[in-house]
Amino acid sequence: MSLPNSVTINDVVLRDGLQLEAKLLTVEEKLDLSNRLLEANVKTIEFGSFVHPRLVPQMANSKELFKYLKGNHDTTFIALIPNLKGAEIAAEIQVKQVNFVLSVSNTHNQQNVRQTTEESLQSLAKIKTYCDQSEIKVDVSLATTFGCPFEGKIPVERVHSIVEQLTKLSVHTITLADTTGMANPKQVYELVHSLVEKFSKQHFNLHFHNTRGMGLSNVLAGIQAGVTSFDTSLGGLGGCPFAPGATGNVCTEDVVHMLHCMEIDTGIDLIKLIEASNFLQTLVDHEVASSVLKAGKSDRKYEIPVS
Amino acid sequence: MSLPNSVTINDVVLRDGLQLEAKLLTVEEKLDLSNRLLEANVKTIEFGSFVHPRLVPQMANSKELFKYLKGNHDTTFIALIPNLKGAEIAAEIQVKQVNFVLSVSNTHNQQNVRQTTEESLQSLAKIKTYCDQSEIKVDVSLATTFGCPFEGKIPVERVHSIVEQLTKLSVHTITLADTTGMANPKQVYELVHSLVEKFSKQHFNLHFHNTRGMGLSNVLAGIQAGVTSFDTSLGGLGGCPFAPGATGNVCTEDVVHMLHCMEIDTGIDLIKLIEASNFLQTLVDHEVASSVLKAGKSDRKYEIPVS
Repeated sequence: MSLPNSVTINDVVLRDGLQLEAKLLTVEEKLDLSNRLLEANVKTIEFGSFVHPRLVPQMANSKELFKYLKGNHDTTFIALIPNLKGAEIAAEIQVKQVNFVLSVSNTHNQQNVRQTTEESLQSLAKIKTYCDQSEIKVDVSLATTFGCPFEGKIPVERVHSIVEQLTKLSVHTITLADTTGMANPKQVYELVHSLVEKFSKQHFNLHFHNTRGMGLSNVLAGIQAGVTSFDTSLGGLGGCPFAPGATGNVCTEDVVHMLHCMEIDTGIDLIKLIEASNFLQTLVDHEVASSVLKAGKSDRKYEIPVS
Repeated sequence: MSLPNSVTINDVVLRDGLQLEAKLLTVEEKLDLSNRLLEANVKTIEFGSFVHPRLVPQMANSKELFKYLKGNHDTTFIALIPNLKGAEIAAEIQVKQVNFVLSVSNTHNQQNVRQTTEESLQSLAKIKTYCDQSEIKVDVSLATTFGCPFEGKIPVERVHSIVEQLTKLSVHTITLADTTGMANPKQVYELVHSLVEKFSKQHFNLHFHNTRGMGLSNVLAGIQAGVTSFDTSLGGLGGCPFAPGATGNVCTEDVVHMLHCMEIDTGIDLIKLIEASNFLQTLVDHEVASSVLKAGKSDRKYEIPVS
């Protein structure tokens, strides 16, 4: 089993995690959460999105939040942008890295952003030109890479073709996203391995959901396929508003715990991360889907019961 | 990623699953559950244990249950036995296969059965002699193979040494059990691979818990290490009464679902298995920790919403 020495974690709880929560968090609450992630030494954070507040009210204060975050120069803060307007906001407030989402599935893309995948690729080209002028890095998340809740299986050739177009645009990171938790480890290993081999200069990141319990297995398969960068969400928060039934990104502390158990470095302080997840429960007013928050680390020892 | 064509599932819900439930099931209820497992084509079932009813009242009707099961000749029914007395009960009612548990961790063994590991190995030798005369197959489950909640790490050499003693006794199957969910995929791959290589004629089975969310990842690592036989529990029921905090065997339907997604045959009808898990919830009066019961299979398609 060939494993890397270290893996980068991009926590997405502030964006993908919170955007489906019933309770809208204030800037102060989000900042408190961010600070706990920073204290746990999380170095890459997707902190919000510049979408219309009527569509996603949970993200309405993303711009204001960034004012307080931008001083942390050793951390990468990423904003999701749906269009050129989002890129303009990013430039205005000096966000250095943005993430644009498009779906490999045409049907899913139309449901998600009212555009065909082809139209989204054309939007991306304009965004990329604009961001290059503003010195903003452009990442792309490929939703439904491993399956679409409407179309079902996605042809491998279609994924390869879109990735090829993205590499021609010289995007920074391509995130292969399992938007509704349909991926399995064999599929992950085979598809990711083929992409990493073919586009060996491209930086890939993986985004899994734990919908069918396979989230951590897919992380394992992704690592074995050669990827060392993962989206995860504190407390396993998140889902996809356009894919009914989808619940839960892979949980940051569960992924970090597994990686540390496997002697793979993340640079993250797991104890502080678990404390942050515990705090998150008080913010969102419900239990989160975290295993290590409940059970503790695997090296936890128990007193021998007195008989 | 080297994968097998097929994997054998040994469902342990009737023993390991039910033994921690507050509600005691009647023989009729257990038989109803068993029949649903049989209808789903589960071919190996640990159906109960012959322990003293004062210690584990949930298992008190195991002997009676077997009267109704023994006619299913194409299914392997396994009874857990704690001692020679258990083997005598097995012989009396014509159980053909028994499972004896001992812990690699001496401290855990003393907590579990009030004997040292060495004393348990001596008991096993007598049980094996008795069972050979009665034509009963003897399996052994090695509890705490991947870590002990009291002692912590278990030296690899100690596992190898005990496995060697078991092979000398010619036991049927050795189950490497992660009793309290401490195993990680790297450890599983390395330890299991080393055992499979060294004891290549021995039949191994793996038993994982999902305590820290790594259950299915450990199944994946176990398969990669060359094992094709796993203990799983319908609905993820179960735990260990002597290891506080431990919850949940790996869930049969989640494991079967992952294997089928990976094109690995189990012979099991997944739809009927999910129905059985749904029925289990009504029997035990609580929700079970099953992902596919909640989310459906990964090939589930959704209608495109009407806008």
